[in-house]
Amino acid sequence: MSLKYAVIGTGAIGGYYGGKLANAGQDVHFLFHSDYGYVKENGLRLDSVNGDFHLKQVNAYNDTSDMPKCDVVLVGLKSTNNHLLKELLPPLLHDTTLVILIQNGLGLEEDLQKTFPGLWITGGLAFICSAKTGEGHISHFDEGRLNIGSYSCPDNSLIEQICNDLMDAGVETKIQNLEQARWMKLVWNIPYNGMTVVMNTDTDKLMNNTGMENLLHEMMLEVIRGGNHAGKGKYSIPESFADEILDTTRKMVPYSPSMKLDYDFKRPLEIEYIYTRPIEEAKNNGYDMIRVNMLEKQLKFIESQYIKK
Amino acid sequence: MSLKYAVIGTGAIGGYYGGKLANAGQDVHFLFHSDYGYVKENGLRLDSVNGDFHLKQVNAYNDTSDMPKCDVVLVGLKSTNNHLLKELLPPLLHDTTLVILIQNGLGLEEDLQKTFPGLWITGGLAFICSAKTGEGHISHFDEGRLNIGSYSCPDNSLIEQICNDLMDAGVETKIQNLEQARWMKLVWNIPYNGMTVVMNTDTDKLMNNTGMENLLHEMMLEVIRGGNHAGKGKYSIPESFADEILDTTRKMVPYSPSMKLDYDFKRPLEIEYIYTRPIEEAKNNGYDMIRVNMLEKQLKFIESQYIKK
Repeated sequence: MSLKYAVIGTGAIGGYYGGKLANAGQDVHFLFHSDYGYVKENGLRLDSVNGDFHLKQVNAYNDTSDMPKCDVVLVGLKSTNNHLLKELLPPLLHDTTLVILIQNGLGLEEDLQKTFPGLWITGGLAFICSAKTGEGHISHFDEGRLNIGSYSCPDNSLIEQICNDLMDAGVETKIQNLEQARWMKLVWNIPYNGMTVVMNTDTDKLMNNTGMENLLHEMMLEVIRGGNHAGKGKYSIPESFADEILDTTRKMVPYSPSMKLDYDFKRPLEIEYIYTRPIEEAKNNGYDMIRVNMLEKQLKFIESQYIKK
Repeated sequence: MSLKYAVIGTGAIGGYYGGKLANAGQDVHFLFHSDYGYVKENGLRLDSVNGDFHLKQVNAYNDTSDMPKCDVVLVGLKSTNNHLLKELLPPLLHDTTLVILIQNGLGLEEDLQKTFPGLWITGGLAFICSAKTGEGHISHFDEGRLNIGSYSCPDNSLIEQICNDLMDAGVETKIQNLEQARWMKLVWNIPYNGMTVVMNTDTDKLMNNTGMENLLHEMMLEVIRGGNHAGKGKYSIPESFADEILDTTRKMVPYSPSMKLDYDFKRPLEIEYIYTRPIEEAKNNGYDMIRVNMLEKQLKFIESQYIKK
């Protein structure tokens, strides 16, 4: 039996993975915000390093109450908008709907579960360089993997089926331990997202400065140690993982991470889930991520200069 | 017997202290760079919160080889220009000339002594908010103290005479242990100079952000601990000094420190003496100033984006 998919937040992330699934023939229903009218008329374009395509007919909606109940909900919202899920999700849910939070950071599933105690939740870790580059237009520059880890999904076969659908759609994927996977993702996200904002630059320029590269490496080690403390022995991320991340990034195209784009467009920054929660989690388990803490405070200051709360 | 003074680097610092001495009737000889012609014709203006004055006749030079030998040389150069002292100083020196490096940072006297082994050297610690605001025009906004500490001056009475001259000229001053005084000055300079550059803001906006204020405080504690390690028991800066500095700064006018002005005008930053040397000195004595180190690397990155070395 094939799955019915919903995508909430059809931007760089939701637009890419939902678009790939739809292009492979899956039944996908997309929630749009500002692009709704445009996509309704013109469809959704995806320009990808792996081949461009144009979905001329898209199941597009601008209100989840018009959408069908679905088996899987991909959430590609900015985590700064997760408070909206309380209103957005209910129309899409049946008894065994699985929600996949394809977002960066830590503590996202925990917070959502508090709002929806019985909901099946998994996390999605996107390793991708993509951006919304126009109305109904997603551009994909590099990478593309989506790893999935269960938070509270009792049905492994459902997760396996989603992985198969993704792989059939040309998306590399695997199932991972969620907590470890989220921390491993943070080893990239914490240094690069924040430092490109504070230094107002891209990944490439950071990597071409020896002192900065050393600092990024030190910060990665902090995240690895923080993650291992938080894991309490359930897993162990090796410190050599920092070198792998540096190597991967060195080979990437010069890139502005999502937080840098948010900063450029003067949008709220995802500081809470990418910085504050991991800092708290590590600290509660006996490890003080000093450099990450400093970066968090710098980011909060920068955001406070253009967003008055 | 009255002293003959020279001022090398007649900007915000040299212009202020040299100007005050000259205005009080001392014999002061000023080296100018770009302002030479203007000052020769129009004199030197000092607008001060303690009263404005205009020195119509100034002993102005644009080459130290035209200047008389002096008893005291006040150096107000940026430390990034200290390599020039090798050429600038010799014409001014007699056997017992005392050079006062009124500069921020650590290791300045040590480096100068290597170039001039027999030279009498002291350090000057300026607690002042001032700026060069136009040709031959210095503006003084707040504070104004100048503390002095000997590095290699065998004649204490000379230092005392200079202090008396300064006090007669309306400059508050006292004699201090140089190493301790330099570290105490760094407790202000390290957080505020660097952070106003990295955050592209002024002291006031930093202080109005709670997280940033906490970070500045943590960084001050690092500097105090670094300084106390470097002092090896010869002195002890109390950690409560950080609170004093925060209080003082809270009461100051919103201010862009010298490094922020250097950044705004795309000039070299005084990273070497204000960051690199203190970091090394603390580390060599067993203390790692982690936050200061991170700030240093951020500053070096920022400077590298507009100055190619």
